[in-house]
Amino acid sequence: MTLEHVFRPRSVAVVGASDNPSKLGWSVLHNIVTYGFRGRVYPVNPGREYVHCIPCYASVRDIPGDVDLAVVVVPARYVEQVFLDCAEKGVRGAVVITAGFKEIGPQGEELERRILKIARDAGMRFVGPNCMGIINTDEDVSLNATFAPTQPLRGSIGFISQSGAMGVAVLDFSNAERIGFSKFASMGNKADVSGNDLVEMFGRDPNTKVILMYIENFGNPRNFITIARKVSESKPIIAVKSGRTKAGAAAASSHTGAIAGEDAGAQALFKQCGVLRALTIEEMFNYAEAFAAQRLPRGKRVAVLTNGGGPGIIAADAVEGHGLEMAGFQKSTVEALRSVLPREASVRNPVDMIAGATASTYRSCLSILLKDRNVDAVLVINVPLGKETELETAAAIAEASRFTGKPVLACLFGRKESSEGVRHLIEHGIPTYRFPEGAVRALAAMWRYRSWREKPKGRTVRFRAGREEAQRILDGAMSRDREWLTKREVDHLLELYGFRLPKGMVATTEDEAVRIAKKLNYPVVMKVVSDDIIHKWDVGGVALDIKGETELRRQYRRIMSNVQKKRPGARVDGIRVERMITGGREVILGMKHDSIYGSMIMFGLGGIYVETFRDVSFRISPLTDVDAQEMVEEIRGYQLLAGARGEKPCDIKRLKNYVLRLNQMVTELQGIREMDLNPVIALPKGAVVVDARVRLEQHGSQ
Amino acid sequence: MTLEHVFRPRSVAVVGASDNPSKLGWSVLHNIVTYGFRGRVYPVNPGREYVHCIPCYASVRDIPGDVDLAVVVVPARYVEQVFLDCAEKGVRGAVVITAGFKEIGPQGEELERRILKIARDAGMRFVGPNCMGIINTDEDVSLNATFAPTQPLRGSIGFISQSGAMGVAVLDFSNAERIGFSKFASMGNKADVSGNDLVEMFGRDPNTKVILMYIENFGNPRNFITIARKVSESKPIIAVKSGRTKAGAAAASSHTGAIAGEDAGAQALFKQCGVLRALTIEEMFNYAEAFAAQRLPRGKRVAVLTNGGGPGIIAADAVEGHGLEMAGFQKSTVEALRSVLPREASVRNPVDMIAGATASTYRSCLSILLKDRNVDAVLVINVPLGKETELETAAAIAEASRFTGKPVLACLFGRKESSEGVRHLIEHGIPTYRFPEGAVRALAAMWRYRSWREKPKGRTVRFRAGREEAQRILDGAMSRDREWLTKREVDHLLELYGFRLPKGMVATTEDEAVRIAKKLNYPVVMKVVSDDIIHKWDVGGVALDIKGETELRRQYRRIMSNVQKKRPGARVDGIRVERMITGGREVILGMKHDSIYGSMIMFGLGGIYVETFRDVSFRISPLTDVDAQEMVEEIRGYQLLAGARGEKPCDIKRLKNYVLRLNQMVTELQGIREMDLNPVIALPKGAVVVDARVRLEQHGSQ
Repeated sequence: MTLEHVFRPRSVAVVGASDNPSKLGWSVLHNIVTYGFRGRVYPVNPGREYVHCIPCYASVRDIPGDVDLAVVVVPARYVEQVFLDCAEKGVRGAVVITAGFKEIGPQGEELERRILKIARDAGMRFVGPNCMGIINTDEDVSLNATFAPTQPLRGSIGFISQSGAMGVAVLDFSNAERIGFSKFASMGNKADVSGNDLVEMFGRDPNTKVILMYIENFGNPRNFITIARKVSESKPIIAVKSGRTKAGAAAASSHTGAIAGEDAGAQALFKQCGVLRALTIEEMFNYAEAFAAQRLPRGKRVAVLTNGGGPGIIAADAVEGHGLEMAGFQKSTVEALRSVLPREASVRNPVDMIAGATASTYRSCLSILLKDRNVDAVLVINVPLGKETELETAAAIAEASRFTGKPVLACLFGRKESSEGVRHLIEHGIPTYRFPEGAVRALAAMWRYRSWREKPKGRTVRFRAGREEAQRILDGAMSRDREWLTKREVDHLLELYGFRLPKGMVATTEDEAVRIAKKLNYPVVMKVVSDDIIHKWDVGGVALDIKGETELRRQYRRIMSNVQKKRPGARVDGIRVERMITGGREVILGMKHDSIYGSMIMFGLGGIYVETFRDVSFRISPLTDVDAQEMVEEIRGYQLLAGARGEKPCDIKRLKNYVLRLNQMVTELQGIREMDLNPVIALPKGAVVVDARVRLEQHGSQ
Repeated sequence: MTLEHVFRPRSVAVVGASDNPSKLGWSVLHNIVTYGFRGRVYPVNPGREYVHCIPCYASVRDIPGDVDLAVVVVPARYVEQVFLDCAEKGVRGAVVITAGFKEIGPQGEELERRILKIARDAGMRFVGPNCMGIINTDEDVSLNATFAPTQPLRGSIGFISQSGAMGVAVLDFSNAERIGFSKFASMGNKADVSGNDLVEMFGRDPNTKVILMYIENFGNPRNFITIARKVSESKPIIAVKSGRTKAGAAAASSHTGAIAGEDAGAQALFKQCGVLRALTIEEMFNYAEAFAAQRLPRGKRVAVLTNGGGPGIIAADAVEGHGLEMAGFQKSTVEALRSVLPREASVRNPVDMIAGATASTYRSCLSILLKDRNVDAVLVINVPLGKETELETAAAIAEASRFTGKPVLACLFGRKESSEGVRHLIEHGIPTYRFPEGAVRALAAMWRYRSWREKPKGRTVRFRAGREEAQRILDGAMSRDREWLTKREVDHLLELYGFRLPKGMVATTEDEAVRIAKKLNYPVVMKVVSDDIIHKWDVGGVALDIKGETELRRQYRRIMSNVQKKRPGARVDGIRVERMITGGREVILGMKHDSIYGSMIMFGLGGIYVETFRDVSFRISPLTDVDAQEMVEEIRGYQLLAGARGEKPCDIKRLKNYVLRLNQMVTELQGIREMDLNPVIALPKGAVVVDARVRLEQHGSQ
């Protein structure tokens, strides 16, 4: 079942159409008619013969011809009957604007379930309920089935909004900014048609060049990753995800009746599927304007052309601040600039043509810069110095940019969006901003997107592992309703998946411990072995850095007496003597089952700084090899692992390998709720899991 | 000498006035005349009898009456003569718009020096050269002595710009946004009148409520701290400082001919004097609108009132993200809201009145929220849902805010600045934004400013110290042209300033070392003592954690033989035996002499993470006790020092004390260029400087 009937209907019934301009049923019909829908429209309202001078029907069933789409604006209590009527009539799509469903509590939730069942049984797809409608600006459809007070401009942006109010606001805003849409959908409660369905559909839509999303929470994040990754390969998806902070998330859960996601999950998810995250609606549109109008830059070297020094410096700050580079020009460029510019001008980047610059100076300099092989994109800034009209300057910029393959963005500093220069530039495909920072931010997003698209896509890696035996360990522990695996179980599990543990053996007598230590070579470590003791440190059951036999014997006795004192009832199987790992760097690997995002894998620097600096990276499982590589390399502490300060680098390859092994464990085993490998000591060759904990899913939990 | 004659002249000569509208000399005269200057204006141009139908004079000397201010727009080569004429005429102030001075190189620099001398000798103050002029909108002055194409609106913002182009752009932008100015000055090359002079003057100006600055570099940062701190106590200063990044700084130095400052210095400077830093021009105006129109919030608890869920969530995210809090309402508030809102509305914060909200709903709910004792400020959001006109809603918001002492900010989501609702709100003193984030950011800046104003101002602390002896140590080393102090000199210096060093003594024989260690108690540390060896580690001259006599004797011999092998010629005075410091946290204290900002003091977490996480705080010396406190508390790792994870807290008081002692050293001693106390071990009681290096100023260097 596609969404063809919803977005490209040949006939639309407005169920709940009204003659009263204060009602939504009026606004929707009014918008459909005035926006010039190319098909037939049938108002439905049992009380009237005509609405808006159009013949009106008592029920969908009474409509003489076929109905592709029903737009429903009746009160919630009538919606079920309307759906039954639609099913009987054979209507294939619906948009339910009516509110009063899941978002108001259990009663509404039940009603939502019932209409979903009717739709499923009848093979009808529907958007909503509790939404503001949909728009398709395609010339052969021209459908505005919303109650928004603003009619959308035609363009190449597809917008999907989880908030109706945000949808209205955005239509209004984008009209002022002269931003055009191809399609728009307000998702509402997403009872049937989901955000994923819409992304997939907009992805296929030839009129949509850029997809924008306003999201408050995800229905099926793993599905989203798959779909969005595919779509992002051919067109950019830009998303604002709110509910980032605790307060925002609390508001989100009260707003949509869904559990709010943690931001780490959302952040990982966007990274994994190439979705560009914007932090504000304004930023999202900054990006969208650039993506819709311009090509992607081939590199990150930016030239800035300005008639005012200050704005040039601000732009240079922004270029570096956003991870781009100020281009260094070819010699011929500098010479050419010098020949057209006065002596006081600066021919270095940023090129400051100074106050006297005319439209023709802009034309010449911009052409020169676009020819430079070291320049991947140009930002043109104009300050209104009153010597030339704004329109002439705009025309010169547009003209010089015409036959280039490089992106050109403009900043008419401080100018209104209604000014003629801004209009001219936008109409000629030059995204134009009020301040240099907005333009640079957009350019940086384009570069980020291009880099994502060009990087190797990564593949799933599978290691030989003792999967069945590992599952038996987990099942055994779960069948006894345990929350944690014992140390021995954990070690066994890790060994089955190819992790290296410190060399060692369990001693049951002091003399045996001495023999083992001798074989291992000092220094050694000792740890009590007991399934009854999970937190060995707390009972004084550990001794580190034992350098000789005397110390070993003393510590052996100390551990035994500590344990007897603090845990008199515990069954002790002996003391494990291990080779002490010296040198290397502590890292942490972890996994957490998130109720929204599924298994989240974590990597970071270990030690006491983990919590303070939160220098960790997250991804949602399953991971590719490229994901694992990025996880290791994106933490700030990566330089320490890679051998900063003249030290030997750690075995980065092994760390990536461990991330992938962890990923494999959590994908193919059932029952792990949380897992910490902490610390893992990363050595110049190899890495050793010194301690680990595995928490199980419990029958009572979640 | 005040700037009275410059900003409140009764008569102005425009030297270089022109009849040709493409010349600056035309624009300046045109602006003065059309903006309605209240005094007399005298065009000066040797070639004409009238300019702009006003009688014209060949020279300033020929003007019959007194001249308070000369605005100079002649080419650079004539400026010196004009200054001589002005001096002869007794002109007291000048604004030099003409470019071609310091900014073009040595020749211009020389010319600038000459005109400065003429002015100083004649007691004349001047703004510029290479600037765009000044504005005073006071009704009894009404002077627009700039060549900007836009006439400024009257208001309460004073704006100081180091870039002329930025000045033009800002006037243009602010006109569109309906932001009014009290005074404006483009500083140009700051040959005479500096940014500090202007801040001081705008600080005293009763018509200026908020001071905005666009800065590229500081002339005298220490003076700026003093002046700005004083002014900030009564009115906010908001600054954009560009040249933040390397690229920006490079552009800045080419632009202004001044050395660019490092951003850490600027950041510290702003913190120390209460200046609010905005990162973009747009942000600066976001702040200014709020400060100019509203009172400061008494606390940081914000209520959000909205008719759309999405924008409410976005606002809640922003509130937390900017360090404010979402207010928890009083019970009576919740009840009152419940009584006026429909069942589907949310009466929790953010209050979502949902789509049906009318102007009267806004009025009631806003009044209710403003009465809540737990609410310090309200952000009102409106999405255009088409049921009520924008103006009615705006009027209701303005009305309900009228008699409150709490700040109210509005967001008419996505609306243009020219829309009637926005105009109405701004005219009624409600700062109004397009997106919730801008409003929240401004509110956060207001709260930050209020917190700064209310915090104790801090005082200078002076400890007893052996200043003279310390200076002798430095002088002695400098007289021998040394770059570094020896370990013994460093220790002595630190002791003279009350820093605690590890207990210990120098042994010259193995047996003596054993005796010292016994007295100190094991474990101990040994370090070779030699003025010829600065990097003891590199020559194997250190041994840590020595636990007994046997080990001590072995290590003693090892160190001696290492040193003999690696530094056969070095004079060795013995081996220092010190008590080993166990436990505690490593921190770093440092000082660096910066050519622009002077002595910069640094504090941070020590260890290998210093470089990776750069978790350090900076201040410019001299410091107050409050500065020291903030330096210690603002690093992210502060929680580790304060006893996170159930550990004993470090002696924070002592760390602050050490910061102040370091400050005292660098303020009263001459000759220190750089100093690192690293590591300093912060213990539960006290702190010990385990290692330190002091680098001296050299004759060849700075």
